[in-house]
Amino acid sequence: VGSVFGNILRTSVFGESHGPGIGAVIDGMPPGEAINADELALFMARRAPGQSKLTTQRREPDQVRFLSGVMDGRTTGAPLTVFIENTNQHSGDYKGLTDTVRPSHADYTAAVKYRGYADMRGSGHFSGRLTAPLCAAGGMARQILRRQGIEVGAQLLSVGQVRGTSFDPLEVSAKDFARVLENPLPTLDPAASAAMAEEIDAARVSADSVGGVIQGAAIGLPVGLGDPMANGLENRLAAALFAIPGCKGVDFGSGFDAAAMRGSDHNDPFAMTVDGKVTCTSNHAGGILGGISTGLPIMLRCAMKPTASIGIRQHTISLKNHENAVLSVVGRHDPCIAIRAVPVVEAVMALTLLDLLLEEGYYEKP
Amino acid sequence: VGSVFGNILRTSVFGESHGPGIGAVIDGMPPGEAINADELALFMARRAPGQSKLTTQRREPDQVRFLSGVMDGRTTGAPLTVFIENTNQHSGDYKGLTDTVRPSHADYTAAVKYRGYADMRGSGHFSGRLTAPLCAAGGMARQILRRQGIEVGAQLLSVGQVRGTSFDPLEVSAKDFARVLENPLPTLDPAASAAMAEEIDAARVSADSVGGVIQGAAIGLPVGLGDPMANGLENRLAAALFAIPGCKGVDFGSGFDAAAMRGSDHNDPFAMTVDGKVTCTSNHAGGILGGISTGLPIMLRCAMKPTASIGIRQHTISLKNHENAVLSVVGRHDPCIAIRAVPVVEAVMALTLLDLLLEEGYYEKP
Amino acid sequence: VGSVFGNILRTSVFGESHGPGIGAVIDGMPPGEAINADELALFMARRAPGQSKLTTQRREPDQVRFLSGVMDGRTTGAPLTVFIENTNQHSGDYKGLTDTVRPSHADYTAAVKYRGYADMRGSGHFSGRLTAPLCAAGGMARQILRRQGIEVGAQLLSVGQVRGTSFDPLEVSAKDFARVLENPLPTLDPAASAAMAEEIDAARVSADSVGGVIQGAAIGLPVGLGDPMANGLENRLAAALFAIPGCKGVDFGSGFDAAAMRGSDHNDPFAMTVDGKVTCTSNHAGGILGGISTGLPIMLRCAMKPTASIGIRQHTISLKNHENAVLSVVGRHDPCIAIRAVPVVEAVMALTLLDLLLEEGYYEKP
Amino acid sequence: VGSVFGNILRTSVFGESHGPGIGAVIDGMPPGEAINADELALFMARRAPGQSKLTTQRREPDQVRFLSGVMDGRTTGAPLTVFIENTNQHSGDYKGLTDTVRPSHADYTAAVKYRGYADMRGSGHFSGRLTAPLCAAGGMARQILRRQGIEVGAQLLSVGQVRGTSFDPLEVSAKDFARVLENPLPTLDPAASAAMAEEIDAARVSADSVGGVIQGAAIGLPVGLGDPMANGLENRLAAALFAIPGCKGVDFGSGFDAAAMRGSDHNDPFAMTVDGKVTCTSNHAGGILGGISTGLPIMLRCAMKPTASIGIRQHTISLKNHENAVLSVVGRHDPCIAIRAVPVVEAVMALTLLDLLLEEGYYEKP
Repeated sequence: VGSVFGNILRTSVFGESHGPGIGAVIDGMPPGEAINADELALFMARRAPGQSKLTTQRREPDQVRFLSGVMDGRTTGAPLTVFIENTNQHSGDYKGLTDTVRPSHADYTAAVKYRGYADMRGSGHFSGRLTAPLCAAGGMARQILRRQGIEVGAQLLSVGQVRGTSFDPLEVSAKDFARVLENPLPTLDPAASAAMAEEIDAARVSADSVGGVIQGAAIGLPVGLGDPMANGLENRLAAALFAIPGCKGVDFGSGFDAAAMRGSDHNDPFAMTVDGKVTCTSNHAGGILGGISTGLPIMLRCAMKPTASIGIRQHTISLKNHENAVLSVVGRHDPCIAIRAVPVVEAVMALTLLDLLLEEGYYEKP
Repeated sequence: VGSVFGNILRTSVFGESHGPGIGAVIDGMPPGEAINADELALFMARRAPGQSKLTTQRREPDQVRFLSGVMDGRTTGAPLTVFIENTNQHSGDYKGLTDTVRPSHADYTAAVKYRGYADMRGSGHFSGRLTAPLCAAGGMARQILRRQGIEVGAQLLSVGQVRGTSFDPLEVSAKDFARVLENPLPTLDPAASAAMAEEIDAARVSADSVGGVIQGAAIGLPVGLGDPMANGLENRLAAALFAIPGCKGVDFGSGFDAAAMRGSDHNDPFAMTVDGKVTCTSNHAGGILGGISTGLPIMLRCAMKPTASIGIRQHTISLKNHENAVLSVVGRHDPCIAIRAVPVVEAVMALTLLDLLLEEGYYEKP
Repeated sequence: VGSVFGNILRTSVFGESHGPGIGAVIDGMPPGEAINADELALFMARRAPGQSKLTTQRREPDQVRFLSGVMDGRTTGAPLTVFIENTNQHSGDYKGLTDTVRPSHADYTAAVKYRGYADMRGSGHFSGRLTAPLCAAGGMARQILRRQGIEVGAQLLSVGQVRGTSFDPLEVSAKDFARVLENPLPTLDPAASAAMAEEIDAARVSADSVGGVIQGAAIGLPVGLGDPMANGLENRLAAALFAIPGCKGVDFGSGFDAAAMRGSDHNDPFAMTVDGKVTCTSNHAGGILGGISTGLPIMLRCAMKPTASIGIRQHTISLKNHENAVLSVVGRHDPCIAIRAVPVVEAVMALTLLDLLLEEGYYEKP
Repeated sequence: VGSVFGNILRTSVFGESHGPGIGAVIDGMPPGEAINADELALFMARRAPGQSKLTTQRREPDQVRFLSGVMDGRTTGAPLTVFIENTNQHSGDYKGLTDTVRPSHADYTAAVKYRGYADMRGSGHFSGRLTAPLCAAGGMARQILRRQGIEVGAQLLSVGQVRGTSFDPLEVSAKDFARVLENPLPTLDPAASAAMAEEIDAARVSADSVGGVIQGAAIGLPVGLGDPMANGLENRLAAALFAIPGCKGVDFGSGFDAAAMRGSDHNDPFAMTVDGKVTCTSNHAGGILGGISTGLPIMLRCAMKPTASIGIRQHTISLKNHENAVLSVVGRHDPCIAIRAVPVVEAVMALTLLDLLLEEGYYEKP
């Protein structure tokens, strides 16, 4: 089922880039949870375009309207619906694109799958714009999780060849998540922020784009969340994260680096803390063993491909004429989608973790 | 729901390492599909232990017994149950392990989650042994997929620091899948096989272990399989692959490498073939755009951590005594779990793809 | 998951009676299906209030707005969202009701479950008004099913003590479904319509209400739709029909009457038709054997309780004061909810059957 | 998904009447729950055949073997598998039946659906025998529910024209459930037991069969269990109960009788008890309002059709010859399947309620 996330907390995302609007219905929202609208707007703003020359110049106010499920600032327990009107479509920019399919976009696969009926203006339901309702839903989940003692954060870990500084897999804190937001680009290290900005601007001026890696973390989880095999933390987080357009890889803890390691380096020794709690002296596992949370920070990475839309001329085909063609994508595009995907990673993590808390009986009523 | 895979084809895996046996119920199996038992046994044998000094010396015949759903060598359409008796448990090897929790294993997380009631002998339901029923189910799915024109294969792409040769993302064929099986280790390149074997043996003689990367591929998929957002090929394949014990990362196409690329390098140009079909001249997308198959080979990688069980002394804790402890894991272990996980990757891919074919109406009755 | 219907065709219903509006997201809608808006409006009008003195005097235009998933009058394949603004709330009518809980309503159970946070104005998410988006979704499903050769119809079979004429379980046709709509009340027999109207009016003038039975039928199904055990036609239809507020019973074929029969009377003899097809000479099974369609008409009944809201004084309690209380429900109510529930039964049947057609591969692309 | 029950507690039932055996995997079983094997055997015995001339003379010891998920008499938290070997198949009795399809059986629908590949010996996966693993799973759920303060019971309410005595919808107790088991037939009233026995024996001696109604009840539920619309107690219980072979109707509280009532008679007045609790002075709602438990007893009825297998000659067809045929079903059959279905109703109710308790966070760890 295409755009429905979660088992108990069912988030059904809808909308097309150039239709009336986009939104999500979140079924299974627990009642009585306060929704701080200002905080939600700030969170949404982190995803919004038009922030600088490093992101697309489109302006989408992304005003979230609640169609159901919220009364007097609190969840009612009924399905909660968020809706964002589409106000700033420049349909002209995308004219002709559905025939001359854009490389690395879903134009071709959608044309075949939906047999020509899909609304592909502005990429339609495939647009990165669909991450706005995900952020609205996940932004609320983040507020709820905080009251359960769980904080979720993310940052740009690398852009192209530029690497930033990793969160500390043992000591990462909510302060680090806040620090990320103080830099021009959402990354821990101010120097990395500057270098990344250069890397992105270099791509931009070449009418090109660049990829990046996003690091996500969650702290404060109870020990024991998740399941072995098909329903573990890794399965569920990965399944949700791959919903982010452009995400082509997900790993946990040392992840792909672990494949090059010896067990004696990779294994995380258990140890008792001075106050009698169980911990580990390293966290190569990313806080997950056997699909289940260890109580240490959840550490994950998402590989984001370079923006598919580039101004450089590309070879492609005309669907109608069955012949080769050439294309330059014009319009307003992010030279690096990874920047604006940082809060989306947080949103998706928050939704998934709240769903699991509810499913496994760890959620505590407010 | 812990150990249940799939939407339409529901595979419910059960069993514990030292209980009566392990197995799986596959609900939703289409009727009339021939099951070649010999071919299935050969496939299962690729996962079986005891093949050489590079794999564990345990011997598990892994004789698959059909408890339901098969008659006269064909599926009946009723739930199909496979069962493998446990015959070779050496419970002694694992005595005491549940108290002195093994680093990088699920001993601690399971102890907390199941409050001491889990059967953790031989890692219980967390054992790599549970991949045997997955292989039985996936081995049947592979046979069915072949008749739908779809082939699934996998290989060791790297072990520790040793890299093998990638499948060609445009030209990979069933011949390549067969070639993998001709080498001592399941990898395309004989030279890589030898170098990997050295790497693993070096770990083994140090009472250590080593990680690896498995590459999976699927060819012959129709264009249009999968969905955007939550139900795409990447979401579903990743969710299933993380069920393999030790899998800590999954990527598709260029995956994590894409994060370091420019769009102009990464985008796959579309082109018409001489016989009028749509193709791409590169396949950085791994055969998936917008969650939907492009018709090019599906290309993915799984990062496998080094075997958690190592003979080297490790620091850990005693759960009972709430104090630090030291542990050397004895018993028969694979120095590199990635070897035997190669067919498991194929099995999980096959189950997931067959489920999607059925769900989206692409499956054709035999 | 509260308000989500279906496996493949996921209909997520949202909204509260006195909130901004009500609607539904239908995920999994096949692309390219024409939506006839006029026909949909006519179908919706059958459920709308204010038609006569036998239904509530509230007026809700129930104007369906498409927020996504439809372009140029056809489904796009992306999630389809229908939205109906709430325009005619008289919140005053319901003041105080949340404390003095109305008998036979969900006021008390909702107060406990949602801990006082539910928006219960006008019954909130429990309102019969939520059947409007169900009708919008089901009305579209009905149009799609018709093109698959499947027609769905329903009628009032009884009201209070007055019984109408049953659809013929062997010969029921689309003409019968049309005939139902020609009478003042939606029932086959004009005489029954008049008698039912009297029964309802008698209840109305006594400030009372009356129950009724709705009969639903579906014709044109392929043989073989459905599954044994948990996923049969009966399981899925019943699960969906009990979502209709006030539905307290569902049976198929002879249903509860079958319990009083002998096998020799109840069994439906198979016979060959003159043109060589398999049929039965009776249809006590209601077109379903072993959870699977026989090809004969699907016949079912829904028992609808009398409207809970009555003007007669009733004993109840005050939640706040923990003491007994007395209540007369004022406001505009249907004396017999079964009337307006007739199209809802059709809608729910259509949604469920389309979901099954898609899931089991019987759906044919337009 | 055919034979999979539940959302969180996933029960996957497998097996065919004349295959190696039948069973179920219960995924999501909470850990640490004691399983009393003797009590389970007694519960299973209530469903077992061969008890008297009123039930089939087949003897199936129905010995439950645990293949996983239980250790030292307690659930481990891993998937729990029960298996019952098939020991007493008389395949001969059913020879030829798959061609000359038995009226009111699934022979014809299965032949079409599974295209001739189904194992239909003894009705295969459609056999009433498949309720044995349901009883094993539900029998364990019953034991767990009891420790949560919830008791589930059922009885024969009517057989053919003979009506027994209803459980008191306000005062029904575990004592009543015990009393049912003291009579020769599982019904509250000894006189009704005798009259029912006569009714069944009359059918039996005529080589005929007779239907019946089963009444189920559950007491001790918390207020607030269930959801409006698609996931209410009625939806979920009905969906599961229709899995019982022969069940053709399900209603709650007054159910179909409510359709003939006035609101002033049907509405259940709320009242405070002397010790300050909320109750109702009648229970026409069957303990469910808006899909949610009121705290009063859950009251439901299942209509069971007469046994399809009768000795009387019936008209049918030959599938192979495409011509009319005549059939007398020989073999050992229950003249009234409702008798042995009584514990199955309890089992299905228990499984469903435990699933909901877990899903909605009402389950308390032992």
